Amino acid sequence: MKIGMLTGGGDCPGLNAVIRAVVRKGIFTYEDEFIGFMEGWRGVIEDKSMPLNLDAVGGILPRGGTILRTSRTNPSKRPDGIDRCLSTLEKNQIDALIAIGGDDTLSVAQKLHERGAKVIGVPKTIDNDLGGTDYTFGFDTACNIVCEALDRVHTTAEAHNRVMVVEVMGRDAGWIALYSGIAGGADVILIPERPFDVDKVADSIRQRHERGRYFSIVVVAEGAKFSSEPGQGSPVLQDMGKDEFGHVKLGGIANILAREIEKRTKYETRAVVLGHIQRGGSPSAFDRVLATRYGLGAIDMVHRGEFGCMAALRSNKIVSIPLLEAISRNRTVDSEMIQIVDGLFQKVNDRETV
Amino acid sequence: MKIGMLTGGGDCPGLNAVIRAVVRKGIFTYEDEFIGFMEGWRGVIEDKSMPLNLDAVGGILPRGGTILRTSRTNPSKRPDGIDRCLSTLEKNQIDALIAIGGDDTLSVAQKLHERGAKVIGVPKTIDNDLGGTDYTFGFDTACNIVCEALDRVHTTAEAHNRVMVVEVMGRDAGWIALYSGIAGGADVILIPERPFDVDKVADSIRQRHERGRYFSIVVVAEGAKFSSEPGQGSPVLQDMGKDEFGHVKLGGIANILAREIEKRTKYETRAVVLGHIQRGGSPSAFDRVLATRYGLGAIDMVHRGEFGCMAALRSNKIVSIPLLEAISRNRTVDSEMIQIVDGLFQKVNDRETV
Amino acid sequence: MKIGMLTGGGDCPGLNAVIRAVVRKGIFTYEDEFIGFMEGWRGVIEDKSMPLNLDAVGGILPRGGTILRTSRTNPSKRPDGIDRCLSTLEKNQIDALIAIGGDDTLSVAQKLHERGAKVIGVPKTIDNDLGGTDYTFGFDTACNIVCEALDRVHTTAEAHNRVMVVEVMGRDAGWIALYSGIAGGADVILIPERPFDVDKVADSIRQRHERGRYFSIVVVAEGAKFSSEPGQGSPVLQDMGKDEFGHVKLGGIANILAREIEKRTKYETRAVVLGHIQRGGSPSAFDRVLATRYGLGAIDMVHRGEFGCMAALRSNKIVSIPLLEAISRNRTVDSEMIQIVDGLFQKVNDRETV
Amino acid sequence: MKIGMLTGGGDCPGLNAVIRAVVRKGIFTYEDEFIGFMEGWRGVIEDKSMPLNLDAVGGILPRGGTILRTSRTNPSKRPDGIDRCLSTLEKNQIDALIAIGGDDTLSVAQKLHERGAKVIGVPKTIDNDLGGTDYTFGFDTACNIVCEALDRVHTTAEAHNRVMVVEVMGRDAGWIALYSGIAGGADVILIPERPFDVDKVADSIRQRHERGRYFSIVVVAEGAKFSSEPGQGSPVLQDMGKDEFGHVKLGGIANILAREIEKRTKYETRAVVLGHIQRGGSPSAFDRVLATRYGLGAIDMVHRGEFGCMAALRSNKIVSIPLLEAISRNRTVDSEMIQIVDGLFQKVNDRETV
Repeated sequence: MKIGMLTGGGDCPGLNAVIRAVVRKGIFTYEDEFIGFMEGWRGVIEDKSMPLNLDAVGGILPRGGTILRTSRTNPSKRPDGIDRCLSTLEKNQIDALIAIGGDDTLSVAQKLHERGAKVIGVPKTIDNDLGGTDYTFGFDTACNIVCEALDRVHTTAEAHNRVMVVEVMGRDAGWIALYSGIAGGADVILIPERPFDVDKVADSIRQRHERGRYFSIVVVAEGAKFSSEPGQGSPVLQDMGKDEFGHVKLGGIANILAREIEKRTKYETRAVVLGHIQRGGSPSAFDRVLATRYGLGAIDMVHRGEFGCMAALRSNKIVSIPLLEAISRNRTVDSEMIQIVDGLFQKVNDRETV
Repeated sequence: MKIGMLTGGGDCPGLNAVIRAVVRKGIFTYEDEFIGFMEGWRGVIEDKSMPLNLDAVGGILPRGGTILRTSRTNPSKRPDGIDRCLSTLEKNQIDALIAIGGDDTLSVAQKLHERGAKVIGVPKTIDNDLGGTDYTFGFDTACNIVCEALDRVHTTAEAHNRVMVVEVMGRDAGWIALYSGIAGGADVILIPERPFDVDKVADSIRQRHERGRYFSIVVVAEGAKFSSEPGQGSPVLQDMGKDEFGHVKLGGIANILAREIEKRTKYETRAVVLGHIQRGGSPSAFDRVLATRYGLGAIDMVHRGEFGCMAALRSNKIVSIPLLEAISRNRTVDSEMIQIVDGLFQKVNDRETV
Repeated sequence: MKIGMLTGGGDCPGLNAVIRAVVRKGIFTYEDEFIGFMEGWRGVIEDKSMPLNLDAVGGILPRGGTILRTSRTNPSKRPDGIDRCLSTLEKNQIDALIAIGGDDTLSVAQKLHERGAKVIGVPKTIDNDLGGTDYTFGFDTACNIVCEALDRVHTTAEAHNRVMVVEVMGRDAGWIALYSGIAGGADVILIPERPFDVDKVADSIRQRHERGRYFSIVVVAEGAKFSSEPGQGSPVLQDMGKDEFGHVKLGGIANILAREIEKRTKYETRAVVLGHIQRGGSPSAFDRVLATRYGLGAIDMVHRGEFGCMAALRSNKIVSIPLLEAISRNRTVDSEMIQIVDGLFQKVNDRETV
Repeated sequence: MKIGMLTGGGDCPGLNAVIRAVVRKGIFTYEDEFIGFMEGWRGVIEDKSMPLNLDAVGGILPRGGTILRTSRTNPSKRPDGIDRCLSTLEKNQIDALIAIGGDDTLSVAQKLHERGAKVIGVPKTIDNDLGGTDYTFGFDTACNIVCEALDRVHTTAEAHNRVMVVEVMGRDAGWIALYSGIAGGADVILIPERPFDVDKVADSIRQRHERGRYFSIVVVAEGAKFSSEPGQGSPVLQDMGKDEFGHVKLGGIANILAREIEKRTKYETRAVVLGHIQRGGSPSAFDRVLATRYGLGAIDMVHRGEFGCMAALRSNKIVSIPLLEAISRNRTVDSEMIQIVDGLFQKVNDRETV
């Protein structure tokens, strides 16, 4: 078969491992032929591609990014976008297309599927928040990077008797904050799923200092929300925390939170915004294995003809689920998981600090 | 309650994270009191312990090793061993004992349980080969270390057109070899579960060179076995590969294999034996979270009175299973997993290279 | 002798290595006795100390931060500060004091020296900008952290065809930006020593894209300055780049610069602010050796009676220089070094891009 | 000018950084043209080369190994070797040749220079033992790898009350053992420059245990020698420590030493042989900067016509020295350096443990 492949949306450690696994198994087992469309759907719209053979995927396993590059181009947002995609596939005599990406990328895959194209999805979200699958690649690498940063920040916090507020990725779901916060020994973890009361955060830090631990680490997801505005009618969120489109700004929440904690506790407080370093670089061993398994699963799905579906990890097995199922819902941190980790923290005012 | 804790057997990244989680949740949630027995069962036999409070577990999360130290002392192998353990527990008014360790450590826990002591187990094996549980902590860290070493070795192999044979842990099970081999892009992976034919290994390397990849990486578990002696009546295994007790020697298999590959292919071949660096050092984020969850699960089990049981991870949930179930069988790499990864490799003489 | 020790100013990887080396050589070679004053000069003012023996320094070599903690308390800024320090030293019968710190810490050491106290300095600045010494510990670790971050950011920049602006430490001197920028393959490096013209920065990025490299990495020291305001009378620097005291704000320069580059080139541009992770965590091998050598040098200086002096590294040897010499001048990046690295970059409009 | 380049001998982190710096400055500043000979001198003998332009060196800075590959082929050892090299240079109209390598590689460069070829050398030795230069690239990376391994081994040693003997590179010079031993907090460091008495090593470990430190780390260079055979007439060195050509075998010294220490102290002792992982992988920031500076220096030397010379680092400046000076002598650890670090260790029987 002649198979096309593309990577769309934000980059994520493990993309190259998926590409490599698909190509190797495709060639060794099925004698497939591959082309890679460049820069996500843009390459399909504009018919821009590169050949993908064994040489092209040699040595890419440990590398971050994606050799196919990526973009956020969404053909659905152009009148003729979907049509042009279909025509490129036809023109290149593509028997099947493997689209690796998140919500947005996969919803285009679904639309092409509805128009008759033979499409398979591979889920990609560093935030680990895609419906229908237990773990996505890239998430473990991000947690390791944040965890290492927390280890570093710990020594500074301890040396200076400081509170450090560390902002991590997670616009809608708190997985990275929760996992890396536990791994890095955070004292407070704030996630989008549970709006927080800054007074209680300050209380819990104060309580900790009172039992002789003169520093604290607060991990906050970029999408975490105050349960009520700090201070009466304080305009801070409007001013600093959101950009002109109403999106949470990178660093917005960390800087506001640091200021509000310092105001309440009088402890020296500093903000750290990890930003883009969380998604680049060489994937962890776990992510390389997981991404490889997704790739092996996807090429098998192609040859079993499971189009309109996506590879998913369930109970440590790669299975095939409808694309629709994945893109229709976000997977947020459930209350069970929160309850589990709650035991790590001292109760403050009869409530949990997570 | 007054609770004792110990760590036995080989050290493993994540032990301190378990200890910390048990103590924190025990104190914050249940108002327990803890003592730690030193150096595994030896500390119970000899009544040597240290107090375990919040201060004692402060800052230990990122550290390898175990603050309780460890040993391979097995009370069952001394006539009065079990009795002395029981008497120490009684003397210290221990309401429950949490034993963190592998097969050997947990079989003592089972014996004490049979004699009426209230014991809970937490599984520990860096090889990931304990029955009844999906993942054990330490395994992910080991895979990351091996994977990073393979990345390093790759650059040398490529620069020199060399075959590199890298020996990793795994006496009875090939989990580390398989996972880190996939993650590190190994070209051949040899595990104890499948005795290998060195001629076919050499063939597959030759085949690879013929398609223009002038270097190869072979990952071999320390317990991997030749399907037949290399060469007729060659005495190498007896000479170099096993020690006086018939155990595979560290480096034995790697050095023999390197020699046999070089003999057959004429390619320059070198052996690397990773040894003890695979089990030391700071745990990965994944292992810190997993170890923490095991610890939280174990202290809950104590308070639910599930004695004679062990915390286990199944389908990403911590559950309680009988100790007997865990210690009665080894979990080796199953043929399904082997089949899955087989797709990564080119077929050689109608067989798989894994 | 009875010797006091303290660490002052910002924390820095290697502080614990200095403390350990001083104590080990002091005890093994000279049979000294040590106490450590807590939190820099604050501990001397308030007579707060801990005993420093072999046990206290056991295992601290690989740890970031400082077991003596630190603060920015400056006794010169309190009317009775210096007097109280002298009285604490006398009360504790301190024969000599070793002060480890930067400009500010060492200027207090000099004042105590002028009042007759026996003080030795050990230089500490992660920015590598202290006069009189070739390298200071902590700098190499910071460069490794930044370099690793640049490697990560590269894969993202390349996958997305983006310009990434990475802000690193360096208020007055560009050492970290220059070294880590070279090590991380930055395409533009901006340092405080050379105010830059944002139009030329944009030109050089455009030129790079024109020869087919569709991404660029800009490393900017936090103290780098525009040679002229970007845009006529643009108020951005006042608004966002400086805080109420006129200091450059963390992230100020990176965010402004990213915006100005995007405006000029139309390439998608993102800012990353590394902040506090640059100074925490385990020191590199180089810094551990260097810090150890500073410590060994300092304790020898005490026993040679070289008070009022500071240990310094010159041509790879530890020598003793007057404190006054060190604190009187900053060591900035010299034009020779800039010229050397200039060869790495393409000329733009007859000027250098560094 | 048309310039040839090659890398010879063992691979070393930083080789690609040298190649990249030479090519970039050559093209940007001098408008040179480059070809790279493959696999060291073999490529010159056989006229096998690749073009080296900006694209070829794009993205190679962080990569270990060498894109030109390497070999130990020495033209001097073939009757027509040197002649063939000269004829390849002439045939390709090479105006100058840059040879990057160690003793062996540079001695061929010298021979070609004597025959009239225009050759420049760049020193490469991971052991840091080349005459005439203060530091060579690759050494810092090796020390970081060893140091990290020692950190890992520490936690195991401490958890198990063990002595760990770690063998590191260094056939003739102890730089890696000394630097990484200091950085990793080794308790005993054994180097080729000072034959050691195994009884005194055992004494010093025993003394350490007596003051309550129940574990010890011994770092031993592969070329370290017993001052007298352990045991009367023990044939161990002949049997296990050397190969058929009389070379010290990888792991030879570590295994013997571990056995002899355990015999004398009765403490459980284990050997770790780091081997090839010390020279592969991504270079440290220090090495990337150093290698870049060597490359920039070398291309300038070409254009200043300093043939028959080698770039060298002296007092932190790149200078030009005659090739003869470099290859005529090895740089071993001097007694001054040994004396400096001696202060870290407790005296045993009136002698130093290093």
